[in-house]
Amino acid sequence: MKKNITGKTAYLITIGDELLIGQVIDRNSAWIADKLTGLGIKVKKIISVQDEENEIIDALNEGIEKADLIITTGGLGPTVDDITKKTFAKFLGVHMVYNKDFFEKVKDYVAKRGHTIDDMLFNYSHFPVGTVFLKNRVGSAPGMLFNKKGKKIIALPGVPPEMKSIFTDEIIPLLEKESNGFYILKKTILTSGEIEAALAEKLKDIVLSFPENMSIAYLPNLGRVRLRLTAKGTDKAKLQEQLNEYIEKIKDKIGEYIFGYDNETIEDVLGKMLKERGLFLATAESCTGGMVAHMITSVSGSSEYYKGTVVSYSNEIKEKVLGVKHKTLKKYGAVSEQTVREMVSGVLNVMDCDVAIATSGIAGPTGGTPEKPVGTIWLAAGSKDKIITKKLQLGDNRLKNIETSTVFALDLMRKYLLR
Amino acid sequence: MKKNITGKTAYLITIGDELLIGQVIDRNSAWIADKLTGLGIKVKKIISVQDEENEIIDALNEGIEKADLIITTGGLGPTVDDITKKTFAKFLGVHMVYNKDFFEKVKDYVAKRGHTIDDMLFNYSHFPVGTVFLKNRVGSAPGMLFNKKGKKIIALPGVPPEMKSIFTDEIIPLLEKESNGFYILKKTILTSGEIEAALAEKLKDIVLSFPENMSIAYLPNLGRVRLRLTAKGTDKAKLQEQLNEYIEKIKDKIGEYIFGYDNETIEDVLGKMLKERGLFLATAESCTGGMVAHMITSVSGSSEYYKGTVVSYSNEIKEKVLGVKHKTLKKYGAVSEQTVREMVSGVLNVMDCDVAIATSGIAGPTGGTPEKPVGTIWLAAGSKDKIITKKLQLGDNRLKNIETSTVFALDLMRKYLLR
Repeated sequence: MKKNITGKTAYLITIGDELLIGQVIDRNSAWIADKLTGLGIKVKKIISVQDEENEIIDALNEGIEKADLIITTGGLGPTVDDITKKTFAKFLGVHMVYNKDFFEKVKDYVAKRGHTIDDMLFNYSHFPVGTVFLKNRVGSAPGMLFNKKGKKIIALPGVPPEMKSIFTDEIIPLLEKESNGFYILKKTILTSGEIEAALAEKLKDIVLSFPENMSIAYLPNLGRVRLRLTAKGTDKAKLQEQLNEYIEKIKDKIGEYIFGYDNETIEDVLGKMLKERGLFLATAESCTGGMVAHMITSVSGSSEYYKGTVVSYSNEIKEKVLGVKHKTLKKYGAVSEQTVREMVSGVLNVMDCDVAIATSGIAGPTGGTPEKPVGTIWLAAGSKDKIITKKLQLGDNRLKNIETSTVFALDLMRKYLLR
Repeated sequence: MKKNITGKTAYLITIGDELLIGQVIDRNSAWIADKLTGLGIKVKKIISVQDEENEIIDALNEGIEKADLIITTGGLGPTVDDITKKTFAKFLGVHMVYNKDFFEKVKDYVAKRGHTIDDMLFNYSHFPVGTVFLKNRVGSAPGMLFNKKGKKIIALPGVPPEMKSIFTDEIIPLLEKESNGFYILKKTILTSGEIEAALAEKLKDIVLSFPENMSIAYLPNLGRVRLRLTAKGTDKAKLQEQLNEYIEKIKDKIGEYIFGYDNETIEDVLGKMLKERGLFLATAESCTGGMVAHMITSVSGSSEYYKGTVVSYSNEIKEKVLGVKHKTLKKYGAVSEQTVREMVSGVLNVMDCDVAIATSGIAGPTGGTPEKPVGTIWLAAGSKDKIITKKLQLGDNRLKNIETSTVFALDLMRKYLLR
């Protein structure tokens, strides 16, 4: 973290009263900081200030003295409290100038939505002299680029999709061009089904053999661990080759836990596998209480491979709807390998599907016994021909247990399909 | 926002490399800012800095010059990169001193968890001379209070539950005592089933009649709108009376939409109502895909009133499992009042319950038709005796549609039970 190969530093300044009264969490800064770090630029400080001219100018002055790049977000809207543009003009020592093209474009945009044109729009169409516009494909407020004392100052809207769009389309290419010939390539390996420490142990030898310009970060999140590989250097093609080489090595070692790369999700990956194979999935849930179904159906188009779930929060429903045998429940209990196996068979039958997932466990925080403490969870996945199972022993946080076992359950079906 | 009745101002400083590389979003600052605003203290600036002595000291110096109170979070852990304590000692110009009581307490805590004691723990037990300890009921790192130049400086751990516990138990009472005799009382009214603009219209006359020391904020969030009432002044009992008086007026006007107050959730409230009435609930979901079940079962103890859900993502399952008539689906379609009514009746039967909720709609972003565009959602709630229904017309964001219709569905059952 304390090294940055381009040698460049940045200040992030977020502008808006809503941040300082705690109405809004500043999520933009972390997003931008992650991207800048990836570009080899070190973020030295993040500052949130009110919509007040002096506060903004103080922060800009500090930034221009201490860093090579300043990125501000917020305060670019059309209402009177959005004073960022005027403040920038003052900071840069320039006038505001009317931009007719901008006015006409926004007039059209506004008229199409049935609103009327007024003074506000006219004021909104003024910009500091010398503004370099950065295209906003999502909303009306453009990003703005300025130069002062050889430093770059970039102002972005605070609405996250607008900020991200401008940053991705306009700023990243700009910063890459000026990266002093250095490149930072990244690839994220997505895993599920194994904890961070165990993965790190398995990969120890490979990581120790990394060349000096490569590194790995483990980013765990409820049932999933992301492994972020980074390679830095001046030869882009060689870096790509290096990354590919080590990804192959990692795949050889822990391939069974890898469900995807970069921005994929486990529910997307599973959905694609089912669709490719022309299979229909159903689920039978107890402790996950509908979360498995919710994750699957959060994917648009999931009705092409998903039929539904039966959440059975009582033994009665497990017997009546899913056909779990009374004697199984009595002998082994609802939280048992035998029960989740029968839940899979039952829901395959009820929903007339090819494959099914079942979950049963004690989500907590109460309800545990000495033999089956809170956090004991059984999962099953399979078809009429074969069912595989897995037992988890989690903690006592109800919501974490539900989400973690949901992810493990989706992963178990993925593994079943891979056999 | 720009007024603050105590006349006091604060700086928030969050410390940690993980913030500046974008690995962690700073959620603590918004939480603290909200609390301080509620105590009449204006947050002037929020700064995130790295785990670097000079950066931290610069931020502390700026804060002590510009504000009455500084609150820092982060960097109090036992590892070498946690340098906040040492940096505070340097900033205050005092030595670090060994605290035997602290060492013994943490030794016990660590031993109970099966870990061994080492040099790290000894170093961890050193604090700046003159530290006033603020009790941490959740973890091992205490909060610390210092005074310099008549200003208060408070250092809190960055782990959110620990930070919140110390803030709530130790800092709020301390700041209240020093509020110069001013009080800010708040009460949040929780509503569902009506949009912000419509609520504001209905409450217009009441809000216009507010005395000057009272205000209202509308805080919308996917199917719910929170109304935060604030009363400020010197006579605490009178303020409470005032708040109660206006809450009664608001209840008279929009009582049907109010499901609770302050930190309650709609799933908690519904659960309590079902438990009190001794009723068992089941659900039959289509477009919400298990989210209704997930929200209900996220409440610990929900098995005492909830039996389960059938998510039917195909017409076939609606017919076969829920007993929706083939001719109903053919004549009116799956997204219709008739279908959700039959889904309620069907699941009451399948799950042998007293009351049931059903959802069916087009969550999007695709799948709409001219008559039933994306965002058309039908909800039903009722029992064998009576079923009430509601139609929503939402936007084209799939996840927002799922969450909003889930909240409206829970609220429809609440309204059904209130009849």
